Amino acid sequence: MARLLASLLLACCAATARAQVAAPAAPATLPASYVEAFGTMWTFDAPPLDYWKARYGFTPDAAWLDHVRLASVRLPNCSASFVSADGLVMTNHHCARACITAVSPPDTNYQRAGFVARSMSDEKKCAGLYVDQLRSIEDVTSRVRSRITGRAAAARVAQRDSAIAEIQDACQRETGETCQVVSFYQGGRYSLYRYRRYPDLRLVMAPEEPIAFFGGDPDNFTYPRYDLDLTLLRVYENDAPHRPGDYLRWSAAGASDGDLVFVIGNPGSTGRLLTYAQLEYLRDVEYPGQLASLARTIAVLEAYAGTDEQRRRQYENQLFYAQNSHKAISGYRRGLLDSTLMATKHAFERDFRRRIQRAPKLRARYAGAWDAIAGARAEQRRFATRARWYGFGGSQLLAFAGVLVRLPQEAALPDSLRLPAYRGQGLETLRAQVLREVPVDKELEKLTLAAHLDAMRKELPATDPLLTALLGGRSPEVAAEALIEGTTLGDVAVRRRLAEGGAAVRASDDAMVVLARRLAPISRAVAARNARLEAVVSANAERIGEAIFAAYGSALPPDATFTLRVSDGLVRGYPYNGTVAPYRTSFYGLYARSAEFDDTAPWQLPDRWKAARERLDLATPLDFVTTNDIIGGNSGSPMISRDGEVVGLVFDGNIEQLPNRFVFTDAVARSVGVHSRAITTALRQVYDAAWIADELEGRPAAAR
Amino acid sequence: MARLLASLLLACCAATARAQVAAPAAPATLPASYVEAFGTMWTFDAPPLDYWKARYGFTPDAAWLDHVRLASVRLPNCSASFVSADGLVMTNHHCARACITAVSPPDTNYQRAGFVARSMSDEKKCAGLYVDQLRSIEDVTSRVRSRITGRAAAARVAQRDSAIAEIQDACQRETGETCQVVSFYQGGRYSLYRYRRYPDLRLVMAPEEPIAFFGGDPDNFTYPRYDLDLTLLRVYENDAPHRPGDYLRWSAAGASDGDLVFVIGNPGSTGRLLTYAQLEYLRDVEYPGQLASLARTIAVLEAYAGTDEQRRRQYENQLFYAQNSHKAISGYRRGLLDSTLMATKHAFERDFRRRIQRAPKLRARYAGAWDAIAGARAEQRRFATRARWYGFGGSQLLAFAGVLVRLPQEAALPDSLRLPAYRGQGLETLRAQVLREVPVDKELEKLTLAAHLDAMRKELPATDPLLTALLGGRSPEVAAEALIEGTTLGDVAVRRRLAEGGAAVRASDDAMVVLARRLAPISRAVAARNARLEAVVSANAERIGEAIFAAYGSALPPDATFTLRVSDGLVRGYPYNGTVAPYRTSFYGLYARSAEFDDTAPWQLPDRWKAARERLDLATPLDFVTTNDIIGGNSGSPMISRDGEVVGLVFDGNIEQLPNRFVFTDAVARSVGVHSRAITTALRQVYDAAWIADELEGRPAAAR
Repeated sequence: MARLLASLLLACCAATARAQVAAPAAPATLPASYVEAFGTMWTFDAPPLDYWKARYGFTPDAAWLDHVRLASVRLPNCSASFVSADGLVMTNHHCARACITAVSPPDTNYQRAGFVARSMSDEKKCAGLYVDQLRSIEDVTSRVRSRITGRAAAARVAQRDSAIAEIQDACQRETGETCQVVSFYQGGRYSLYRYRRYPDLRLVMAPEEPIAFFGGDPDNFTYPRYDLDLTLLRVYENDAPHRPGDYLRWSAAGASDGDLVFVIGNPGSTGRLLTYAQLEYLRDVEYPGQLASLARTIAVLEAYAGTDEQRRRQYENQLFYAQNSHKAISGYRRGLLDSTLMATKHAFERDFRRRIQRAPKLRARYAGAWDAIAGARAEQRRFATRARWYGFGGSQLLAFAGVLVRLPQEAALPDSLRLPAYRGQGLETLRAQVLREVPVDKELEKLTLAAHLDAMRKELPATDPLLTALLGGRSPEVAAEALIEGTTLGDVAVRRRLAEGGAAVRASDDAMVVLARRLAPISRAVAARNARLEAVVSANAERIGEAIFAAYGSALPPDATFTLRVSDGLVRGYPYNGTVAPYRTSFYGLYARSAEFDDTAPWQLPDRWKAARERLDLATPLDFVTTNDIIGGNSGSPMISRDGEVVGLVFDGNIEQLPNRFVFTDAVARSVGVHSRAITTALRQVYDAAWIADELEGRPAAAR
Repeated sequence: MARLLASLLLACCAATARAQVAAPAAPATLPASYVEAFGTMWTFDAPPLDYWKARYGFTPDAAWLDHVRLASVRLPNCSASFVSADGLVMTNHHCARACITAVSPPDTNYQRAGFVARSMSDEKKCAGLYVDQLRSIEDVTSRVRSRITGRAAAARVAQRDSAIAEIQDACQRETGETCQVVSFYQGGRYSLYRYRRYPDLRLVMAPEEPIAFFGGDPDNFTYPRYDLDLTLLRVYENDAPHRPGDYLRWSAAGASDGDLVFVIGNPGSTGRLLTYAQLEYLRDVEYPGQLASLARTIAVLEAYAGTDEQRRRQYENQLFYAQNSHKAISGYRRGLLDSTLMATKHAFERDFRRRIQRAPKLRARYAGAWDAIAGARAEQRRFATRARWYGFGGSQLLAFAGVLVRLPQEAALPDSLRLPAYRGQGLETLRAQVLREVPVDKELEKLTLAAHLDAMRKELPATDPLLTALLGGRSPEVAAEALIEGTTLGDVAVRRRLAEGGAAVRASDDAMVVLARRLAPISRAVAARNARLEAVVSANAERIGEAIFAAYGSALPPDATFTLRVSDGLVRGYPYNGTVAPYRTSFYGLYARSAEFDDTAPWQLPDRWKAARERLDLATPLDFVTTNDIIGGNSGSPMISRDGEVVGLVFDGNIEQLPNRFVFTDAVARSVGVHSRAITTALRQVYDAAWIADELEGRPAAAR
């Protein structure tokens, strides 16, 4: 469900700013295999017109590009599009989850049961939800860079941040729209993205989760697939349906084998510019740590929620995100374990560094960046185990205690000497987080903390000071029980009192606060050392981003930044499982997979689908695959023909696509979409919602 | 189609006989992981009763074992079983191909159109087809060994062969049945297998090939799968249906998830006793050579037959066998490229050799065998490229010429100095082959020979004497054209004249004969050297077989020898493609896969199946998977419950099972069968053959 949601940590604006780079050189010629490795997430200010013409004979004019851009919108963590003259917005079921739950009446869970408005007046307002429409892009690299004049790193970051804030503020003032400065190429370029925000969205139609997410976690990230992962919303303005100037028309035929298809959407983040040393560190250190942590979370949640229906509902989202992340990261890591992928990276890096070596100006500026990163990562490896455990992990209450203890200590230091999370606005953000009311489930906290301590005990030496402080000679279970029972930090009023000043924290005899006071000095040195090395990596990654842009201009599309991209691809099956995966699945296949698991979850069909079986032409396409370049954030992207008509709706990639995070390939990696005919067929035959299907297909209102 | 046919070269009787070994030692305890690696192809004279009891609580008595053995029969290259009181025999469609074609009337191809007898009187006699029923097994190891008294290898082989012939003859004389001495453990043990032969088989029912082999070559060796790979025959005696004392009753429910299932059948050949050096040689030398040769054959046949319907029919079988072999060998080789599989082999070999080293008697007798094999393989690697090309390959006509030239030359030598194929009975076998009338397609011969020469030219140095003799400065195409046009060896009368004596061959100016005279002396030294090394490998492989039997007795099931085995397994899905493969497929899935390829071949449904759709309960199981241990030769094996009832019909393994040839595993390797309910459902609903379904289900004849 969350499979193509954008990561919440965007690449945007995270890196440290650097001095103005040389003006982009004439793009050098790169071997085709390297170009392909950078994929096809093209920005709208640098569409690859020559490549499209050569490859597909496709020559869109500016009007085509403007039209599809304006018909596309962005949800807070997904993509979407206008698909009717009356402001219907199409996205995935898993992108509108919060709204579907929020608008459910007390006696019905629309998440499970689905929702279909019987007319416009029946549509349900999604409080707090909005979509952003990209109105313009402007290169502001020199405006940002000209403001960075300091020498010290901290000063330069502050100058960059204030330059960005000023540009954004000015834009917002002048236009009244939502403005965002985005960095591309790890800081190699800055662009001002201006959005029109539509803040009134209403739920029109959402299928039952068991069909939207048919196959559940097992089938997640796979193909052949049989999901109707769809939600239809409508934008309102002044309580009337918005009539967008640009919306995507519906294709009656939908996607066919071999068709050219464009995906317009907002991929969240890729790592195609990462150095070899960064990839090795991900593979050997970061991903294994994340996978182990997610596996613990999944095991605890399954054990805790498995037997109890109420708990199952309460934690199914959380379990879901953990399973989804575990499967995704396993796939990313599998890519990094693939010798072919790593060899491609290696060859590119060697070639790229040779080019930098050959140009004296570039060499002076950039040549040292790779070794600097490799050196930092090598040092980080030396204490990676401690760095992983030396915090306040395993319990939300312990995390609160950690922040409460650190807030006065870090606030007393000059900004540049603080731990990174406490710098600048961070201090206030953390304080606000601690003071936010959140439900705490003490039983779950105990299990989570015990699992955390147990894992920690297996990885750290028995004499480790942090471990000793945490366990105090007790078993993980006993320690967790004592800590959770010995704290009142679950009460926001208690946290508020402790957040008022250092004295209260110093005096507290709350078990978690006492513990956090002991842990804080032990862990700080490790955290500070790690932060210093992360800063080295980040600063040098930005240098490499500049170098690649300096050397090749926009010949290579930049890494994903949750900004609007257009990706070209073909509808195409692929070799799989010793045979061939078809380019599309069918309703037959849906009923087949359900029957073949004897109609058990997560392959159990909703009653509505069982009842509709006889009415359906089972040969109708359901899902299909293309070679488009997508990643988390692309969920809900429209898939359109060269005529700009909707032929499908992106909702996932296959398992083979996950390594595309680092190197794009299309031999077996595929994007998975819902076929446009599946959507209208389901609306008419299963959901008795011909009026919506008519609207999508542009039939006159009279006929509705 | 041929996927589980037995290889024509059986392991039986091929190895050289050796001196009597020590009496089997008490079975040593092997780590469970090694035992598992030897799989579950149990012989009926050593059923693993303790293991079955411990693992499944299953304790069959002798009557159960006798019953299922006598209900099972063997076709010339497949397995089968009696499945009704009136002698119905169940096997695969691809096992009865020759009969189905032979009984087709001139205007109908039953292969394509299917055949269903409307009553017994409508059944069609399969000329030349028979089944063998295993009546008894007798250990004759000491009877064979006591006759081997010579010292020279050739004498020992002759003594062994005559001992075997005498035992077989005596058995046949005494019982009037078909007797066969089979070697197990590469010669570690000899057993007398006595069969009752039933020579009158008639075709009762065969579905259309497009449903029997739905998915064709792409889906071959894969799962999920949707094939009705079935043929029903009937045994007649004295023109009346045979009433077997033992036949398998039909299970109404068929296989369910988790069920214990036994496969009774005749696996053809495995290589679980091969040494590490033998496996490496297969992986690096033999398999790559075979794959390249098969790929050439496939490319030539596809190009030649692809455009012409008549040719397509003529060569579809041949193309089929080539594709099937290519896919199988690719899978075997993938296993050998798998580091985990090779590590298992290595660990077992190290452990085994250590045990042999520790026992002085065994050490003296066997310790040198592994190094002898490794040494021979190492030497073979040095001239493997020449050995591959130094023959009369690439053309049937050239092969004829080669034999005609060599026959008088080899006949003039003492038997032991001849090339192996010309020793003993080989001389007459080869002569008979050359004198057999066979159609020769000159256009295809030219293409095949040109492809062969082209590949040869890429692998051998330009100055190679054999290559120079073949090409004579011409391009492969020109040389092939000249050779094929310059020979009359396609005419059997010409071959007969040349086979009459050496003078005719020496005088011939036929282009192929002239060429063969030049090639014979060049290639003979290479062939002789290779043969000598193969003999070293074979003799030492037999020593290792003796060693394993001497060390462990029958604790480990012997390699497959196309003799009757009983394998235990469970009905069970498995992890696949990032998700889970269900334990069974459905008729829904059949229609799905056809629709998803837009009803194109090889996923095109026969008309009868299109018409029957509305009548079928599409949720009915079609195929299913189990963890049973099978390989080529098991095609047509019944899959039975612990009650001895038919729950399915083996027809294939999944792609993950192919490496089981060398090491058995059941994590993802699966046997694929047709579900018993699919058979009766299809008979009733698709083929209007309720009388056959009734007979299978044991309904009284009155009801039929």
